[in-house]
Amino acid sequence: MNKKPIYEQIYEDFVREIKRGRYRTNERLPSVRQLAKDLGVSKTTVESTYALLISEGYIENIPSYGHIVLNIDTLISGCGEKSSRCSKAQNSRILYDFSYSDLSSESFPLSLWRRLTNKALLSEDIDKASHYGDKQGEPELRKEIAAYLRLSRGMLCDPDQIVITCGIQYSLDIIVKLSDKRVVAMEEPGYYNIRDTFINNGYEILPVPVEKDGIDLDSLRDDAGLVFTTPSHQMPTGAVMPYSRRKQLLEWAENADSYIIEDDYDHEFLYDLKTVQPLQSIDTYDRVIYLGTFSKVFSPALRLSYFVLPKKLLQKYHRLFHYYYCMVSWLQQRIITLYMAEGYWERRVNKIYSDNRRKRNAILNAVKQYMGEKVSVSGSEGGTHVVVTVSGTREQDELISLALQKGVKVYSTMPFWLNKDKAPLNSILLGFNAVREADVFPGIKLLSEAWF
Amino acid sequence: MNKKPIYEQIYEDFVREIKRGRYRTNERLPSVRQLAKDLGVSKTTVESTYALLISEGYIENIPSYGHIVLNIDTLISGCGEKSSRCSKAQNSRILYDFSYSDLSSESFPLSLWRRLTNKALLSEDIDKASHYGDKQGEPELRKEIAAYLRLSRGMLCDPDQIVITCGIQYSLDIIVKLSDKRVVAMEEPGYYNIRDTFINNGYEILPVPVEKDGIDLDSLRDDAGLVFTTPSHQMPTGAVMPYSRRKQLLEWAENADSYIIEDDYDHEFLYDLKTVQPLQSIDTYDRVIYLGTFSKVFSPALRLSYFVLPKKLLQKYHRLFHYYYCMVSWLQQRIITLYMAEGYWERRVNKIYSDNRRKRNAILNAVKQYMGEKVSVSGSEGGTHVVVTVSGTREQDELISLALQKGVKVYSTMPFWLNKDKAPLNSILLGFNAVREADVFPGIKLLSEAWF
Repeated sequence: MNKKPIYEQIYEDFVREIKRGRYRTNERLPSVRQLAKDLGVSKTTVESTYALLISEGYIENIPSYGHIVLNIDTLISGCGEKSSRCSKAQNSRILYDFSYSDLSSESFPLSLWRRLTNKALLSEDIDKASHYGDKQGEPELRKEIAAYLRLSRGMLCDPDQIVITCGIQYSLDIIVKLSDKRVVAMEEPGYYNIRDTFINNGYEILPVPVEKDGIDLDSLRDDAGLVFTTPSHQMPTGAVMPYSRRKQLLEWAENADSYIIEDDYDHEFLYDLKTVQPLQSIDTYDRVIYLGTFSKVFSPALRLSYFVLPKKLLQKYHRLFHYYYCMVSWLQQRIITLYMAEGYWERRVNKIYSDNRRKRNAILNAVKQYMGEKVSVSGSEGGTHVVVTVSGTREQDELISLALQKGVKVYSTMPFWLNKDKAPLNSILLGFNAVREADVFPGIKLLSEAWF
Repeated sequence: MNKKPIYEQIYEDFVREIKRGRYRTNERLPSVRQLAKDLGVSKTTVESTYALLISEGYIENIPSYGHIVLNIDTLISGCGEKSSRCSKAQNSRILYDFSYSDLSSESFPLSLWRRLTNKALLSEDIDKASHYGDKQGEPELRKEIAAYLRLSRGMLCDPDQIVITCGIQYSLDIIVKLSDKRVVAMEEPGYYNIRDTFINNGYEILPVPVEKDGIDLDSLRDDAGLVFTTPSHQMPTGAVMPYSRRKQLLEWAENADSYIIEDDYDHEFLYDLKTVQPLQSIDTYDRVIYLGTFSKVFSPALRLSYFVLPKKLLQKYHRLFHYYYCMVSWLQQRIITLYMAEGYWERRVNKIYSDNRRKRNAILNAVKQYMGEKVSVSGSEGGTHVVVTVSGTREQDELISLALQKGVKVYSTMPFWLNKDKAPLNSILLGFNAVREADVFPGIKLLSEAWF
């Protein structure tokens, strides 16, 4: 008799079947209850099996939907959706990766970082390297960020409104506690990496459909104390919320006594829309919690983000988080402060902007040249990815696997949907933050050969 | 008529009165309701005033107790309890600081950090500096930590059980979500900086009295899903939980289906108790969540901590936090990995241990020589502070202010108490992590002159 616990035996059956290709990417697995019934085992056993499959990167749990099989390349190369999780070896078969999250490996300023580290270690106030710091982050860095937001986004905010954090989920872990209501309105489709943060904090998620002008205001409910939105370049559709709707959204927040969480994650890349103002800068009601990040322009490995609180919420923030410590090491804060103060940040923003603008144009041209009428492209006004909708009957998983067979990695829009049934089955994400400019044309050419 | 909002006017009155010395350190302010009644203003107004006083560092809010005035030196030098918040100027009148939280400014290994930074930047897998990393932290660092825990604490844990975080509050922000019950048992008195983390996550706090053998097991309730304890050197009393009670506590957790959060924050400093085993290493029920930190030995400014999950909780952890990103920058993780792998960490532990042991002995000797029978010392078997109980009728705030008048900074035990009425009024914390060895005798001599 097999000594392994039953949930492990079931796990191994799944892995075998998945590797045999019995499941499609994003295919939904039977519910825990159903499978337990079918196999005549307890629900706990099935839950353990699914948890193991999740932790091993085979499937993912989409809240209020179910468990789905991860991208087909997971099964082939054994690495999950986040390319960072794949070793070079596993990725070696990938010739062109159109990732939308990571940056190109060459982009880290090694020698400059070395120089600024030395400079930071010579700081007069080096004793701070051995002491607890300000829970909001070092005032000097908050000053630099405030100046940058003013320059780049026309935002007026006091450094005292800025809180420096180690990433968006940890920003939200604080922000969710500032609202008394326990419902959050989220864009549908929307940025899925943060859904669980709300759910883990006891929030109910109200999905709000995204139209070409951003979220549909009529679908908002007053019991939503928070609205999470990406108005300047909606993730993933790329929809841009026009001024009039921004004003209406702020109006709604004031009337509902709610707060807007504005994730301005890629505002540095508003190619054709330099003039789009963030909600925060046109908000006369003090209703916007603004999220910014160093991940898109510098590196996600820095783990450096920040949020800007409305003055209204400062007292509550200090009351609830009085004893909390800062999230980011003093030394890294000092290095980034020097980086910004000496003008390197502005220069980098400009460089990455023009690099990405060229890569964006290259993608549009290459897609036009090689795919013509067979696809339609949207969301290209800004950001580091475009959405390609492929004509015909082929579905995402097939399109992704066809591409992979040629060594081209493209991405699914499925995880962004809470309600998978509403997800368009033929739209694909092409990111260009990590890909080399010279690789765009050959990559798209190969993709076209894979698809048509 | 005064144009300032009323809450600001009340705020200014308070500040004036506080500066005039009208309030004692740790004196409780009237309740919001009471003060609103007395002044004939709304409760919101008073809440705003108190929030402003908190954010300006004059008072603090002790959950389920009320608002108390901060240490007397706050009023004199205008800086709060955390010495890191004081500029050198504000501290200049302090000749001897017996802080228990920070490290000495000289202790940061500047040139070594510079060298390891250069080495880290030359890593073969430097592309990780531009990519998202493992949500639990880099596997290499978790391996080093697992090896260290085995060596220093006899703990057997798999690197997959370790999660690297940016501080204890953020470790707990994850841990609290792994329990289904919403009550946490906390040591009374206990480490106050984390109380709000539980409260902010919707937990009820069950204070459990600390005896000379650690927490009183009879005061535990089965609806407590988590027990937060510092068994090897209780904060602040220094009580050490003997083996028998540790076993009973684990037994209790198994029967109550609860988990023990073991904060082993200063285990490197068990001077006379090298043999005390952590709960985690004697736990046969898989019921211990172990917390470790780099703050006490290396620096709190690193913002580097970790926790070790019981295998039982791994599946739930992966299910709830599947999409979360890591909290600590890849580069810092790599630098610390090199620091540990090359043996510097072990050497530093040994050095800081013997430095602190000498300083601890110096304090015991100095106190004996200068204060003799007038005080009793406890909690000196380990850690980086001792508790001094002063005979006579003088209370903490007077003892602290008498010391400050001579330029000696000592610390109150009051914040550690949830129920202030039970707090001994004549016990003082003397820390020695930051003070220089040569300063111990003159510092204690001066303290004795201040007190007697």
